[in-house]
Amino acid sequence: MRLAVLGAGSVGRAVVDLASEYGHTVTAVADSGSAVVDADGVDAEAVLARKREDDVVGDGDPSHALSTDYDVLVEATPTTLGDAEPGFGHVRGALETDRHVVLANKGPVAERYDAVRALADESAGSLRFEATVGGAIPALATIEGVGPSRVTAARGVLNGTANFVLSRMAAEGLDYEHVLAEAQDLGVAEADPTFDVDGTDAALKCAILANVIHGGGYSLADVDVEGITAIPPSALDLAAEEGQTVRLVGEVTGDDVRVGPRLVPEHGTLAVTGTTNIVQLETEHAGRLNLSGQGAGGAATASAVLADVNRLD
Amino acid sequence: MRLAVLGAGSVGRAVVDLASEYGHTVTAVADSGSAVVDADGVDAEAVLARKREDDVVGDGDPSHALSTDYDVLVEATPTTLGDAEPGFGHVRGALETDRHVVLANKGPVAERYDAVRALADESAGSLRFEATVGGAIPALATIEGVGPSRVTAARGVLNGTANFVLSRMAAEGLDYEHVLAEAQDLGVAEADPTFDVDGTDAALKCAILANVIHGGGYSLADVDVEGITAIPPSALDLAAEEGQTVRLVGEVTGDDVRVGPRLVPEHGTLAVTGTTNIVQLETEHAGRLNLSGQGAGGAATASAVLADVNRLD
Repeated sequence: MRLAVLGAGSVGRAVVDLASEYGHTVTAVADSGSAVVDADGVDAEAVLARKREDDVVGDGDPSHALSTDYDVLVEATPTTLGDAEPGFGHVRGALETDRHVVLANKGPVAERYDAVRALADESAGSLRFEATVGGAIPALATIEGVGPSRVTAARGVLNGTANFVLSRMAAEGLDYEHVLAEAQDLGVAEADPTFDVDGTDAALKCAILANVIHGGGYSLADVDVEGITAIPPSALDLAAEEGQTVRLVGEVTGDDVRVGPRLVPEHGTLAVTGTTNIVQLETEHAGRLNLSGQGAGGAATASAVLADVNRLD
Repeated sequence: MRLAVLGAGSVGRAVVDLASEYGHTVTAVADSGSAVVDADGVDAEAVLARKREDDVVGDGDPSHALSTDYDVLVEATPTTLGDAEPGFGHVRGALETDRHVVLANKGPVAERYDAVRALADESAGSLRFEATVGGAIPALATIEGVGPSRVTAARGVLNGTANFVLSRMAAEGLDYEHVLAEAQDLGVAEADPTFDVDGTDAALKCAILANVIHGGGYSLADVDVEGITAIPPSALDLAAEEGQTVRLVGEVTGDDVRVGPRLVPEHGTLAVTGTTNIVQLETEHAGRLNLSGQGAGGAATASAVLADVNRLD
């Protein structure tokens, strides 16, 4: 397959780096300010070097990146809320010209799922977005295998930054601000970690899970969200006395979609540590399935993108 | 799809029961002594009632079951070793007539993988066997998504009976014979649990994992196997003092395939309890993926069979 990769953050760069190993050719790469297009395949090493050294992927205009020959749009630009632009427009352009779309950007399928689904239904191209929920974890492929109507609930720890902070607070008895600063020093938390710690990122993933399970109808506004910023160390101490701990848990149960700090058994399945994510599916005939792994990171997320590319018809 | 279901044990019966919910029609069912065939779809309730009351599925000859119209052979007869017959013959007959094959029977893909693979390569039909490893757990679909060559190791707790026995021995301090008798009373262990407790069942699953990861070449004879029958309660006590416990772990690492009791951290990922199974995959780009769930049971295993049917081209 010929891939057009939009976005040159850690995920987009890793897709460019790994695509040839998966048997695919990258014919276009664009970031917000530059682009490179080559119908015979771009030079991945040169693109990555330019990005690293000069923060550009090439000398072309990013708006022309999708005018090349490509079979699959890999949309890995930053997640945006509301109208989910410019990602939504990229997705529309690709589907309207009967190309496949694989998303790492959560915006279009969290905020405008029904519109994206309608575009995909009209298109000869297919739409996949495994990488948007739980990074490397095969959550959506598993729901597809079970059959969305036979998944009765989904639950998970879906934000590695929040989980790292909670794990460290519980293990060290330190307060939120202290641990967050440490996480930022380690590169686990971004300079602006708002969406991670206020629950927005996990809520977007839950909206996507709800859309997949229920066939659409959900956006961030439908998720009841509470973050971890107000949890005092004393709450974790109290939990520990009862053999419990606190995790930022997202849940899709029936029509309800919510994210918030929950008490979970200290050694239980949901008490994943560090940046690990977990998705738990309750199914009609197969009981509970637990899927855990790296919820973020360029290569791990890119591997979910490339698995999606391999699943395209 | 029209399904011909061979085998009317718990898995075969559950496939017959659930097929219509997944949009499929069962056109033949056979057990070892009887069969029923109806090109318009058998009456599932009647078949299940006859099996329950008279231990027959119909009044036909089982050897004629595959002469009906069908698209997919669901092979759910008991696993046999060595030549893997009669399962292997059923698989050959279906693939040679360009039908798809979905296996719950481990024999053909554990003992004669290369021959089955060659038949599938020559056939217009496809071969799938998710249900043979870890019941409801999507282990093989996940390996397929990651790409077999990018799975660097697989490891797992793959036998629910052995795991139940070890969990109970550790929790209650009881000896092996006592707990096994209890498991038999509860229906968790079969009357003859030899293959579960001597490691054979887990070893067959590891041979299948090795075949998938390495593209063939493995059978039971290639697996280094040790069971749980010789573990004294004192070994579990000693492990517990160090925060460890014992699990029957199967491993595929490089060319090595082995099954045996291993020390694992008491609250670690591999220390699943009761009849839960887990498969852990080490991947080149996506780190470690953990997949756990019901490793056995009619409905859970049938759901893996039917997910495979839905994945057929």
